Order: sequence, then C-alpha cells, then structure tokens
Amino acid sequence: MPVGLGDRLVTDDLATVGERAALARIVPRLAKAEALLGPGDDAAIVAAPDGRVLLSTDAMVDGPDFRRAWSSPAELGWKAVATNLADIAAMGGRPTGLVVALAAPGDTPVAYLEAIADGMAAACERLAPGVGVVGGDLTRSPVLSLAVTVTGSLDGRPAVLRSGARPGDTVAYSGRLGLAAAALRFLFAAGEDDPDAVADLRRAKPGLLAEQLAPRPPIRDGVVAAEAGASAMLDVSDGLLLDASRIAEASGVVLDLNGGALDGWAQTVVAASAAEGLDSSAPRLGPHEALALVLGGGEDHGLLACFPGAVPEAFRVLGIVHEGDAAVLIDGAPVDPTGWDSFAHSTS
Amino acid sequence: MPVGLGDRLVTDDLATVGERAALARIVPRLAKAEALLGPGDDAAIVAAPDGRVLLSTDAMVDGPDFRRAWSSPAELGWKAVATNLADIAAMGGRPTGLVVALAAPGDTPVAYLEAIADGMAAACERLAPGVGVVGGDLTRSPVLSLAVTVTGSLDGRPAVLRSGARPGDTVAYSGRLGLAAAALRFLFAAGEDDPDAVADLRRAKPGLLAEQLAPRPPIRDGVVAAEAGASAMLDVSDGLLLDASRIAEASGVVLDLNGGALDGWAQTVVAASAAEGLDSSAPRLGPHEALALVLGGGEDHGLLACFPGAVPEAFRVLGIVHEGDAAVLIDGAPVDPTGWDSFAHSTS
Repeated sequence: MPVGLGDRLVTDDLATVGERAALARIVPRLAKAEALLGPGDDAAIVAAPDGRVLLSTDAMVDGPDFRRAWSSPAELGWKAVATNLADIAAMGGRPTGLVVALAAPGDTPVAYLEAIADGMAAACERLAPGVGVVGGDLTRSPVLSLAVTVTGSLDGRPAVLRSGARPGDTVAYSGRLGLAAAALRFLFAAGEDDPDAVADLRRAKPGLLAEQLAPRPPIRDGVVAAEAGASAMLDVSDGLLLDASRIAEASGVVLDLNGGALDGWAQTVVAASAAEGLDSSAPRLGPHEALALVLGGGEDHGLLACFPGAVPEAFRVLGIVHEGDAAVLIDGAPVDPTGWDSFAHSTS
Repeated sequence: MPVGLGDRLVTDDLATVGERAALARIVPRLAKAEALLGPGDDAAIVAAPDGRVLLSTDAMVDGPDFRRAWSSPAELGWKAVATNLADIAAMGGRPTGLVVALAAPGDTPVAYLEAIADGMAAACERLAPGVGVVGGDLTRSPVLSLAVTVTGSLDGRPAVLRSGARPGDTVAYSGRLGLAAAALRFLFAAGEDDPDAVADLRRAKPGLLAEQLAPRPPIRDGVVAAEAGASAMLDVSDGLLLDASRIAEASGVVLDLNGGALDGWAQTVVAASAAEGLDSSAPRLGPHEALALVLGGGEDHGLLACFPGAVPEAFRVLGIVHEGDAAVLIDGAPVDPTGWDSFAHSTS
C-alpha cells in the first residue's frame, strides 16, 4: 500500500533507506524539548519535579482511527500529540514529554514520516510550548500506526480524578463540543475514494475539518481547573454523555446538564457546519443532528470538570451535580449515555 | 484474520464484546503494580523519587517482529515487557511502571488478549517484581501490535549513557549472546505454515526457543553495573558488534573484543542448539554459524557495559577499551559491525 505525497516522485521509502537512516532524518525535527536527556540512548530522562509522574498512552491506527485519504501526515502527527496532551490536562497536569512508537509500511516515503514529525513538533509548540518528543521507536508494519505516550507533572498538586465530584458542584466545560464529530460526518460523506470530493470539502470547510483532523484541546486549562479546585475532570473523547456518565459513576453522583446550554452548543455546530460554505448547496447540519453530535460525538478532547467553588473564566457552565445513584440527566430527565466504542461501533 | 486458541470455540471476540468490556476483563489481570494511581483515569501516576523519570518505548508488530504461528499470546506479552524493561536496565535504572497500547483485529478473542496480559504480568513478576502495567489503550487494527512504554528511576544516580566509555575500561557482558538468534533460525526453518513442525521444534528445544520467544534479560544487573561505576552501557538488541559500535561511536573510543571470549559464547550456542534434541537427526548449528549469531544475531537483550574499575560478578569480561577513532575490533583486527535493521534486512 503505497503512501503518496501528491505528484512527487518518492523513491526514498523506509525499506530502501532503512530504519536507522530514516530515524536520523526524523529525530532532528523533533528535538526541541526541555528534556534532561533526549533521543539517542536506551531511554530519555524527563524531569518529575514533585517526585511523581503522570503517564498515559494512546494509539491511532490507519482505518479505525484515521484515513490517509482525509488526513495529511502533519495532521496525523498533530492529532496524536494533541489527544495525548489532553489526557495529562484532564488530570490537572502539565505535560512534560512524549515518546512515540511509529509503525509504518516499508514503502512509506521517509518524507511522509518527516511530515508526521513536523506535525508533532507544531502541536507541541502550539499546545504545550517547551514539551517535545524525547524518544521513540520506528518499526515496520503493514498498517500505519502511531502509539504516543505522554508524561506530565502535577507540580505538587493532587491529581484531579474522575471520582471527586460532589453534590452541589458546578459542571463546566472548556473546549469545543460536537465540531470534531460534525467534521467526521462530512468526511464520511465525501468518502475515501474520491480525492476531489475531499479536496472540495477541505476548501469549503477548512476550519471545521481542522476540529477533527488537527484538534486544539485547551491543554493549559487543565492546570487552570486544578488550581481553581476542580473536584473531578476528564477530557471528552468518547462523547459528552458517555464521559459525563464516567464521572457520575466514579463519583457516585448525578450530573444534571442544562438543556439550554446544550442547545447553545448545538447552534454553534450548526453555524460552524454552514459558515464556511460559499456554495449554498454545500451540505450543512440541522439542529437535531447537531445536538446528537454535541451529546454523543466525541473526539473534541475538551475538558469536562466539576467545581465546588467559582468556575474559571475559560470554562462554560454546563450543569450541576446532584446526590443520587450514578446517572446523567438533561434538565432533570434521565438520558442514555451511548457513545463511541471503536470496536462495537466503528464504521470502518 | 482470525486468531485461534487451539481447538477452543471462541465467540467472544473484540468486535462482539466491545472495547470497554474487553478492557474490564484484561485490566484486573495486570493491576498488581506499586503505582500511586493505576488504570481507570485519564493517566496513571508513578513515583519518581529523585525528581527524574527514565522513559522508553518499543513496539512489536505481527509479521516484522513476531509470528503468531510461533509465539503464544503469553509469550508475546512477556517479550514486549522484557525488552522494554531492558531499556531501563541499560541506563542503570530500576523499572517503575509500564503502559501498553494494544492494537488488535476485531475478531481477536478476548481470551487471547487476556493471555497477553497474563504474560505481561508474569514477566513483571519474574524480571521486575513490584512493577506492573499501570495503564493502557486498546484499539482495533488489522494487524496485532503491542506498543509498550516503560518508566524507570535512577534513584539519585547519574544515568549510564552510551557515551561514557574511556580508554582502559573493561568491556563486559551480562546475559545471553546468540541464543535468541539461534532460536529464530530454527523457527524460520520450521516455517509458519506447518504447525506440526513448530510443535516438534517446541518439544525438541523448549529452552532454546524461550530465549527468543520469552527472553529473560538480566534486568537487575543494570543497577548492579551502575553501582559498580559502569561508564557506558546498552542492551544488545541489534547484534553485539552493531551495539558495541554504538558505544564506540558515542564515546569516541575503540572497543577491542577478545576472540577467545567470543568463541566461548559460540560454543555455548552450539551446545544449546544441540543439547535438547533427543533425536540425533534434529538440526543443530555449527561453530561458524554460531559465532555469526553471537556477533550479529541480536535480540538477547543482555547488558554490554564498560567498567573503569572492578567488573561485577554477573558480568563476563569481553574485551577492553582503547583510544582511537571509533571502531570495534576483535583481537586487534577491525570488523564490520553489521547487524539487524528491521526495514532493510527483515525476512518477512
């Protein structure tokens, strides 16, 4: 399965160049991190100033998690980094380093891997300046995949777990909601076999597509929430209702979401799905479809948090925590928190 | 591509059960670690007592890195953990935690993944008691792969890098040499399409095969070497000569290996390749072939270290460090440090 880079004639693929020579080209594009020891030895060394390290890993696989027909290599690198950084933010932590296990077919052009590295470096610089890829592994695989592991520091604070929400807390959210899923809907409609349709879509809705292909989770707001005393937090990767139900279950509380606030998010999705379309015949989303994406879409990687006290400015109020058996409500009415399970519901 | 478990009828595969239900079965088999926070939240928390954390990642992919016709799922889990632990040992560190990104086809039986987890837990218990898998990610992929990231602590010591070897140091090695590659040679001879041939080989040479399929690198000897003042160290994953050349290049020195010592290792390989064969017609290796495997085979993951002072008991002397342009010699004669490059030389 050849990986194309437009019309460029690419002869230097992994199988030809070899793993070590490819790494020698890729690593310099990444080595901008404030690590105690970067790539080149058996392990990197990252600072853990308070004697603890946050650790999380997340993989992206060609097919179930992305399509090369839709994502540029730089976008793949960006997204793999961004979604991992969000896991550190969701603990109230500050990202400190990343390692990447990249597996690629032998006929992958080294330039494609360089572009992945560039996307990773760009995401770090934008979302977590000073943080970078400090080590990695390059191996051959029939299927392109990126397994990223991220470290973080709590800088002496307690971690913000999913289990700390208490009755009376305010539920609030920082980031986007439903936009990543809206973009995915348009991408599925364009399909994988028609490059022109994808190119048209990219021209018509560049901002919306970026929400799916190169998301910008509010990484710094994780520490903001922790410093404001957040009692529980996670990043919304599988859908708002499903992720809210995880806080409800871990904390043994009810999260009652405000229907008006959710409608407001849905209106944002409707507007975002239409605003960029110069061609009035371009597809757009209706309000009911948009609300479904807000509630169940996932992949926005914003931060859902509960606050016993004042809610920081970056967060928008979304509801309130009640006493009761674990559940998620909207305006007091129970809802079924169905979400995204990559095995059970993947469309690939 | 179905994954079989002998004759057992397996109906609970990932696609049927779903990611979350599968994880609920897998995670309890792993949660024996001394982590500050284990699986279940957005990130785990691992202790980093001296304010630094060692970090390394390594992936294994079905085809280039293992064959399901040869490895049991427990062996896959074991090997993924063992090779990662060796990277921490090679820095003079003590492993502290592991996270695993597991990607598997939707038709993989959950029992197969449970067996992988069991192998991981067994390797931790044997090689690094108290250490365990503290988090992970399960995703669908057309190709089975395990990307493991390991953390470690230096407990206040400086890291043992590749760049610290100095003229006059003694070169020494702890672990096996050539046995993993010898086993691989027999596995390739048995092939992937003849389960009986593989079963015969497993019966004839169980100990030798384990060197390849479930290696036991001398993890604790990493700290032993560091405490003995090792000036440089790495784990031999790509072949003795190639890995020795990495120390030579990073340190700007000559590593002069002792031909007699290398012959001794080759004799061990010859003996190990024959000893278990009850059938005198079973294949075995000749001395020249065995020496080639000692020098270039790789995958034993023993520790190659340089010592300015006394060599710890667990290490066997292999040569001496000289001044000069970076090079590897055997008894004073230059050798070409060719090794294993998974892209350029893989036989898959």
